Amino acid sequence: MNPLDNIYVVLVGTLYTGNVGSACRAMANMGIRHLRLAAPNLQNSWDEGERMAVHATDVMNAREEFASFEEAVADCIAVVGTTAREGLYRQHVKAPRDCAADILALASQGKVAIVFGREDKGLLNEEVAQCTHLVRIPVDEGYTSINLSQAVLITCYELFTASGRYEPPHEKAPPAVQAQKMQLMKNWANMLCGIGFMKPEQTDHFMQGFHRVFSRGVFSRDDAALMLGVARQALWAADKAKNANPVKEGDNG
Amino acid sequence: MNPLDNIYVVLVGTLYTGNVGSACRAMANMGIRHLRLAAPNLQNSWDEGERMAVHATDVMNAREEFASFEEAVADCIAVVGTTAREGLYRQHVKAPRDCAADILALASQGKVAIVFGREDKGLLNEEVAQCTHLVRIPVDEGYTSINLSQAVLITCYELFTASGRYEPPHEKAPPAVQAQKMQLMKNWANMLCGIGFMKPEQTDHFMQGFHRVFSRGVFSRDDAALMLGVARQALWAADKAKNANPVKEGDNG
Repeated sequence: MNPLDNIYVVLVGTLYTGNVGSACRAMANMGIRHLRLAAPNLQNSWDEGERMAVHATDVMNAREEFASFEEAVADCIAVVGTTAREGLYRQHVKAPRDCAADILALASQGKVAIVFGREDKGLLNEEVAQCTHLVRIPVDEGYTSINLSQAVLITCYELFTASGRYEPPHEKAPPAVQAQKMQLMKNWANMLCGIGFMKPEQTDHFMQGFHRVFSRGVFSRDDAALMLGVARQALWAADKAKNANPVKEGDNG
Repeated sequence: MNPLDNIYVVLVGTLYTGNVGSACRAMANMGIRHLRLAAPNLQNSWDEGERMAVHATDVMNAREEFASFEEAVADCIAVVGTTAREGLYRQHVKAPRDCAADILALASQGKVAIVFGREDKGLLNEEVAQCTHLVRIPVDEGYTSINLSQAVLITCYELFTASGRYEPPHEKAPPAVQAQKMQLMKNWANMLCGIGFMKPEQTDHFMQGFHRVFSRGVFSRDDAALMLGVARQALWAADKAKNANPVKEGDNG
């Protein structure tokens, strides 16, 4: 099974539907689709929520509502509280990245609640005391107040990336091998002499600079083929010009 | 210097001030404070932007505006484009976590632009072609459309965490040493016999279970002291009851 299917985002005492909608979109981005509202205290209509959810209204519409925190997490085998503050009950708090793997391991065994507090007051001490795990999102100490849906995003993002369900992008063209890179240097040296950029005796000197650029810039077979094509074409164009209007070396007229 | 001070978030052709405000708050959370708008195409008033920025209006008010993408990044030594799509110019895209260290290294040498496209169309191909680096945020393939300010948050979060400027929370109480843990087991065995939970000959059997619980649950000196206190108090309470109302072992009256 996919452990992300056992992750339940629980929003406690949320005030604004826009944050619920934004949270739904963030959850959908990260492959997490179960939303629970515990004792919601919504101050505005669902119009704003729907606007912010965009195409994640299915997540929002499938939400479950509970009268209390306790009821919303009763069937969960782990309750992960998110907190921005330090304090008595908050000593064993971890960064989300540092506990994402543990949380996913639990989620492979049963439902896991990830709990987010009120926009203005966060989670109450008595709620924090009911959590089996606590996480705090890394923020700059100069501005620690993070938006509710942004907190949901970071936490879900860490679970999603830790789940290994995302394949990081990778260069599609296969890497160039050394022989191809050396051929590239040789053909460029020929071309640079052929077009009069340098004299044959300057080859070693100038090629050091091109080697520096190419060693950083030419990675794939496609890169190497592209730059080989430049050398070929430049020589062709230079030869064509010479044939059309022949000039002898050292001829100034 | 702090490389985050050389990070410039560049929003291109942004439509909604609310996204600008949310982006400012996300940036402030992650210690990044330079905002540039390139050819903004704002469809609503700054009221919404100020509402979403909350206390990060200083970031928003210090924004610089430019008529074009080119002008907004002209003084940057690296231009990191964010893209949700694959395609011709997008082959060498990386996940933000995988290039955060490289970006910070560049930011220690000069200004680095992190560029975010329009809400509806992202970055145009001709803009992507001007980027020196491309990043794509990991998202679930079932719902890849990420909100602009959420994209800003994830990217800034990865730079912030990679900058090492955040000290992850850690357990404040020092870890318990093995001798203290073994004392705990011994005192609990005495107590459990003393309160009649088990008979002395059952000690090995039952203590396996307590060992399992304590080895997972008792980590710090404070944890161990707490559980040692329970053993002491339970024995004291049991002795007191026995003295007040003496019962002989096996006495059923």
